Amino acid sequence: MASEFELIYQYFSDLGRCAQDKADWIVAGVGDDCAIIASTPGYDWLHSVDTLVQGIHFPEAISPESLAQRALAVNLSDLAAMGAEPVAFTLALTLPGCDEGWLRQFARGLQNTSAEYGIRLIGGDTTRGPLSITISVMGVVPSGRAVRRNGAKPGDWVCVSGHLGDAQAGLELLQSNRLAKRKDERYLLDRFHQPSPRLSLGRKLREFASAAIDISDGVVADLGHICRQSECVAELWADAVPLSQPYTKYCAAQGYSSLDRLTRALTHGDDYELCFTISADAWRLCTSGADKLWLSEEGLPVTIIGKILAPEPSGTGVLVRVLDENDANLSLSSSGYQHF
Amino acid sequence: MASEFELIYQYFSDLGRCAQDKADWIVAGVGDDCAIIASTPGYDWLHSVDTLVQGIHFPEAISPESLAQRALAVNLSDLAAMGAEPVAFTLALTLPGCDEGWLRQFARGLQNTSAEYGIRLIGGDTTRGPLSITISVMGVVPSGRAVRRNGAKPGDWVCVSGHLGDAQAGLELLQSNRLAKRKDERYLLDRFHQPSPRLSLGRKLREFASAAIDISDGVVADLGHICRQSECVAELWADAVPLSQPYTKYCAAQGYSSLDRLTRALTHGDDYELCFTISADAWRLCTSGADKLWLSEEGLPVTIIGKILAPEPSGTGVLVRVLDENDANLSLSSSGYQHF
Repeated sequence: MASEFELIYQYFSDLGRCAQDKADWIVAGVGDDCAIIASTPGYDWLHSVDTLVQGIHFPEAISPESLAQRALAVNLSDLAAMGAEPVAFTLALTLPGCDEGWLRQFARGLQNTSAEYGIRLIGGDTTRGPLSITISVMGVVPSGRAVRRNGAKPGDWVCVSGHLGDAQAGLELLQSNRLAKRKDERYLLDRFHQPSPRLSLGRKLREFASAAIDISDGVVADLGHICRQSECVAELWADAVPLSQPYTKYCAAQGYSSLDRLTRALTHGDDYELCFTISADAWRLCTSGADKLWLSEEGLPVTIIGKILAPEPSGTGVLVRVLDENDANLSLSSSGYQHF
Repeated sequence: MASEFELIYQYFSDLGRCAQDKADWIVAGVGDDCAIIASTPGYDWLHSVDTLVQGIHFPEAISPESLAQRALAVNLSDLAAMGAEPVAFTLALTLPGCDEGWLRQFARGLQNTSAEYGIRLIGGDTTRGPLSITISVMGVVPSGRAVRRNGAKPGDWVCVSGHLGDAQAGLELLQSNRLAKRKDERYLLDRFHQPSPRLSLGRKLREFASAAIDISDGVVADLGHICRQSECVAELWADAVPLSQPYTKYCAAQGYSSLDRLTRALTHGDDYELCFTISADAWRLCTSGADKLWLSEEGLPVTIIGKILAPEPSGTGVLVRVLDENDANLSLSSSGYQHF
């Protein structure tokens, strides 16, 4: 049997390359006790780490290739939320055994995604144990230009990219173990398997957004983090929430009520879209005067779904309210993914 | 029940502080999608990641406090091996459930160790699953001054810090579940629970060593990495290998032969001492002319245990040979920790 070291060299060695413009920054990647990143005057470095555990974040039915793509994409999404350019990543892989076929497929998925985003594997650790994947991504922004969570101001619009709820519906389809034949079902599955880190939008938002976050735990929970750190509250408008046609169709087929459909879209995670706040002036500049819906340069829809407000002096502690078309409070059945 | 977010804020918030001289570098720590590290002209950043899995890297019997200290220390050891000054770390913690008592003790251990080394928690992820801990550490060296694995030259001495084999004996004592009453047994247990990252020695070696690595998988395997990357081979002298009195006593009590005792010291991991190569001239300068044993400024013994040689043209593929007192090849029963 090949040793751990041989396997790692064999399957992950291709991942040590990266786009030429960033190559000079990586002095040493895999193969020393630490990776070395050169001094980069004028840039701040951003770091994010996420763990995916089998049975919790992904079902057994997922392919090693999809798993690798998903693991890297959800991490890149954190960089996107702050407007960063991804550069490198480390991989801590815990495997129940040494399955060469599995490693080969996993490495291929990682290779595809890292090539797509021009990032390089610079270090890692392989251990034995129940399957889990911890990826740390590193990226850069021009010094002082990262988009934080604490900049939202009363009066700012609340916006989201893409459509909400798709990934959760895709996960349910995956878990149901039936073959997704129809195009709309395959779309939902893809949204779970291959979330698209919104890196271009994130970079553009460096110039315009007052705060941003990526949607991993549901927009109500994630926007709540922006509100807490910006010391404000938010209202969301139920009828403005962007839902895809495949999602709407899926919910109808499952017999979900319209409130269920909305609750799922607002509180289930895994969409990895961006939620951001932006002043009315900045929105006009950013979108060249779009109304409530803007198509970005890459054709990504961005929708205004609510507004930031000052907290009421006699606050209820509720950070994010959802209003129906008559401006009445809607009561959702769940308020976000709980990790425990 | 407190939510995940509340628990994290509660138990890990103190870890967000760090020594004042490094505080300016951390623009944002825990609480955004990414941590932000400011541009630091003149310094390279070093990164290392390690995962510890219950049942593989530590037994159930270990206390949460010891586990935290150990998890951080083994990562800092990678920075020590390259001569870096530690600055910050991220923590990806996978827990079977939400046990407040466990979290409190774990956070205390992490707090103690991070305070001792003046480093700051800048991000993380908490997930549900089988207990495992992935820590990424970050540190700095003056640009271009990291000690690599690829600089060893024929004629260089091979040196190790401290004593070898202690941590493995400590682990065996821990697994035997009997109370360690005697001072020498407690010493061995401590060497497993709290490995000492050799950061001061590592910083000093920036000026003198040609290559360095930390001993996590046994010196034969780890020195093998230096040899492979430096395109050379090494010989180790059995009678020069530094063994502690508690280790020698433990091996005698277990009835191990002297070859077993040596094999364990050279091939079992977890000591987290430094192994480095150094030219004869640099050794004299570094040690002010010590013979084969040097006590560092902190009183840490550093011993010459072998020599780097050019590979033979008809090479056997063996990178590290061990010689007995008659210069005959010794055959060890194992050549290093295999992760699978």
